[in-house]
Amino acid sequence: MSAENSDALVISSDPLHPANLIPELCRSFYQLGWVTGTGGGICIRVGDKVFIAPSGVQKERIEPTHIFVLPYPQPPPSPHTDRVFLRRPTLKLKESACTPLFWNSFDLRAAGSCIHTHSQHAVMATLLWTGPVFTISHQARQMIKGVRIAGTGTALSYLDTLEIPIIENTPNEEDLKDSMAEAMVKYPNAAGVLVRRHGVYVWGNDWEKAKTQTECLDYLFEIGVKMKLAGLPTVLNE
Amino acid sequence: MSAENSDALVISSDPLHPANLIPELCRSFYQLGWVTGTGGGICIRVGDKVFIAPSGVQKERIEPTHIFVLPYPQPPPSPHTDRVFLRRPTLKLKESACTPLFWNSFDLRAAGSCIHTHSQHAVMATLLWTGPVFTISHQARQMIKGVRIAGTGTALSYLDTLEIPIIENTPNEEDLKDSMAEAMVKYPNAAGVLVRRHGVYVWGNDWEKAKTQTECLDYLFEIGVKMKLAGLPTVLNE
Amino acid sequence: MSAENSDALVISSDPLHPANLIPELCRSFYQLGWVTGTGGGICIRVGDKVFIAPSGVQKERIEPTHIFVLPYPQPPPSPHTDRVFLRRPTLKLKESACTPLFWNSFDLRAAGSCIHTHSQHAVMATLLWTGPVFTISHQARQMIKGVRIAGTGTALSYLDTLEIPIIENTPNEEDLKDSMAEAMVKYPNAAGVLVRRHGVYVWGNDWEKAKTQTECLDYLFEIGVKMKLAGLPTVLNE
Amino acid sequence: MSAENSDALVISSDPLHPANLIPELCRSFYQLGWVTGTGGGICIRVGDKVFIAPSGVQKERIEPTHIFVLPYPQPPPSPHTDRVFLRRPTLKLKESACTPLFWNSFDLRAAGSCIHTHSQHAVMATLLWTGPVFTISHQARQMIKGVRIAGTGTALSYLDTLEIPIIENTPNEEDLKDSMAEAMVKYPNAAGVLVRRHGVYVWGNDWEKAKTQTECLDYLFEIGVKMKLAGLPTVLNE
Repeated sequence: MSAENSDALVISSDPLHPANLIPELCRSFYQLGWVTGTGGGICIRVGDKVFIAPSGVQKERIEPTHIFVLPYPQPPPSPHTDRVFLRRPTLKLKESACTPLFWNSFDLRAAGSCIHTHSQHAVMATLLWTGPVFTISHQARQMIKGVRIAGTGTALSYLDTLEIPIIENTPNEEDLKDSMAEAMVKYPNAAGVLVRRHGVYVWGNDWEKAKTQTECLDYLFEIGVKMKLAGLPTVLNE
Repeated sequence: MSAENSDALVISSDPLHPANLIPELCRSFYQLGWVTGTGGGICIRVGDKVFIAPSGVQKERIEPTHIFVLPYPQPPPSPHTDRVFLRRPTLKLKESACTPLFWNSFDLRAAGSCIHTHSQHAVMATLLWTGPVFTISHQARQMIKGVRIAGTGTALSYLDTLEIPIIENTPNEEDLKDSMAEAMVKYPNAAGVLVRRHGVYVWGNDWEKAKTQTECLDYLFEIGVKMKLAGLPTVLNE
Repeated sequence: MSAENSDALVISSDPLHPANLIPELCRSFYQLGWVTGTGGGICIRVGDKVFIAPSGVQKERIEPTHIFVLPYPQPPPSPHTDRVFLRRPTLKLKESACTPLFWNSFDLRAAGSCIHTHSQHAVMATLLWTGPVFTISHQARQMIKGVRIAGTGTALSYLDTLEIPIIENTPNEEDLKDSMAEAMVKYPNAAGVLVRRHGVYVWGNDWEKAKTQTECLDYLFEIGVKMKLAGLPTVLNE
Repeated sequence: MSAENSDALVISSDPLHPANLIPELCRSFYQLGWVTGTGGGICIRVGDKVFIAPSGVQKERIEPTHIFVLPYPQPPPSPHTDRVFLRRPTLKLKESACTPLFWNSFDLRAAGSCIHTHSQHAVMATLLWTGPVFTISHQARQMIKGVRIAGTGTALSYLDTLEIPIIENTPNEEDLKDSMAEAMVKYPNAAGVLVRRHGVYVWGNDWEKAKTQTECLDYLFEIGVKMKLAGLPTVLNE
């Protein structure tokens, strides 16, 4: 089967098929301001197949036929192969520059989906929390409880302090792979990784969990930023 | 009739049937930022039947068949029964953790509908009003007059000061039931109860009144927060 | 012809018929935050007929059959008549409390449409401009030029300073009629009247002009408030 | 062929035809707050034809038949001709006052599309950056990389400082033509030109590039304004 024309992998009448979900979710993320100007996106892994949107395109106008499909895990690299695909769009589209970072969530957390946003709430959080971690506590119980330990485990307790590591930005997205992986090892309970002046990566067991956790975290970044700017404490001691 | 498959309670071609309204309204609340990340929601009581959305799901993607139906009032508790249902979704869905709080509005106010939001305006109001009550006066007459005394009585006058009690948050949503009830007794005229760092509960005689009162209160929380942050007084003496 | 069942006045397949436009525009105004919680609205006058939405309803859910139609001008008042209608909805709906204020725009400016919003930008403008008038200059030329002298005349010049009078709020909407009329006489060039802690009335020759002028003014209130809060001057001397 | 009725130039079943795209994009820009109150818009050039929306109309309600088509380049001016059109709408519509400014992007950058917004983020940026240029660095790599050198060249590097010149506003839009052209010559790498207290012009090789670059720049204006207001530095030295 040629990777170039295997449309069967992305053509489905099921609205919950990953190739249909990714365009729909990206349109919704565009409304939320998460994927402005071609940035950001979502990947979905179903068993041994990973569905990823192309890079550098208007995320609110993706079609199912634009989706890349990759095998998971990837075959061992050889001198002759770079990344291996089950399907590439026939259009001249590039794979997402986020691919190596999404892969971290599969390799280190067995995630089923990973979302990357450029939400201004996430970016402002990385500017106002100048250290290596964003912390907030006692906020909107359901928001904190909506976040799972390590992104894929049990729900946090309202009495836990939420911690999301912040890594430094780099000129090329691919170069974030190692520092993201390090942060995931150092903060094994974190459901996401912030990138300074850039955005956030959040993962979950499936697309629903990845999406709702991204919403919870984005909510917490937003309210945290508002609290900081209003001079309110964001972590309480009890 | 088995509670597990009584779909007739939630299948209707009438767009104003509660099982159709709840999904539609939740989609609209999602756009308003009230039910981000699975939190928040609405219940509707019609006579002796209460319709409630499930817990922990994406509120903008609820289907009528996801709706729980409970009898009102509930039969007296026994050692063998917990809560009694007229219908449970066949999918593995949990009933809303807000159920006991929604019940307060039925028992203490004879409400026909109750809404819970995690609106950031409500949360910020509870952070900037550090005492047990949010107060504002002389604001947008129609907003204050849109709120009814006790949520189900006659309209407030523009010259009244609006008061909404603020209760403290707890690790589990269910544990708010008693403090919410206490606040409703102590502030018999209030149309809602704020929960610190969490959100708000608002009720009304029916879903329209609950919804428009939630909009009016949310508007007043928002403008109140803006006024506080701008150093403007929120209560005038005349 | 009975005023109770003259549906022919509001049933039309033309999307630009006032009875179709008012519901559509109100849905759009709801998205903009102008008519939250049943407040605000729009009336359209076509020749000797005035079309007005009902009071106290969800403005994003109005149907053509909810629309009131009144003759313009009204017959002289008599001991037996209050306001005269060409059509009243058969549902139990009240006419808009804004009716006397909308009438000011017809009587004093020969307007063809008048819009009332509770936009928070308008309200904040009346709180930060504590005197009897909101002023701004040299802002977004097209925004200022989008506003016409007296609402129905020629376009303002970019070099003009925009002035919108601010009247004080009253417990009942109807009581604003006289002070609004006074402000319109005192500021004959103004395209709208702000009401302190409440909102704004804006009129134009037709619904398009009323709507675009409301957008221009709302934009100017919003940017004016941002400038004030940032410590920037809102009127320049050249 | 009469310029008055050459509808063939704007009637097409292809959703990507410029006469279909312009109305659709303008509706989307309206949602983003870019073209409030008739201001702003987009033009698309395909080879020797330029498609432009009319002036002074509600930009979210444009129809394909409202579109003007002009030849590019324009024939040399003569005492008898002003601007030359391939098609004018039969309705009484005026050509966009932005036409001479859009032309700058064709003449000086060989652009295929140019967008003008009145975004409040752009306006606030011109108020907080009081000098002749808006600068920001190290922000949201993908946002900066989403902007191309000169608007039509290669992508900026994350390590580049983004510079967008700011020109002063004038009473008439047409009078901005020369100062915009001067700024484009003086800042040959800039992908857009800000106009003080007014908005921004952004261009690209085609409508997709113009749109995504406008989104990237608008994002950078927004985050830049937030940073300035929070007292954060917007340019880092490394």
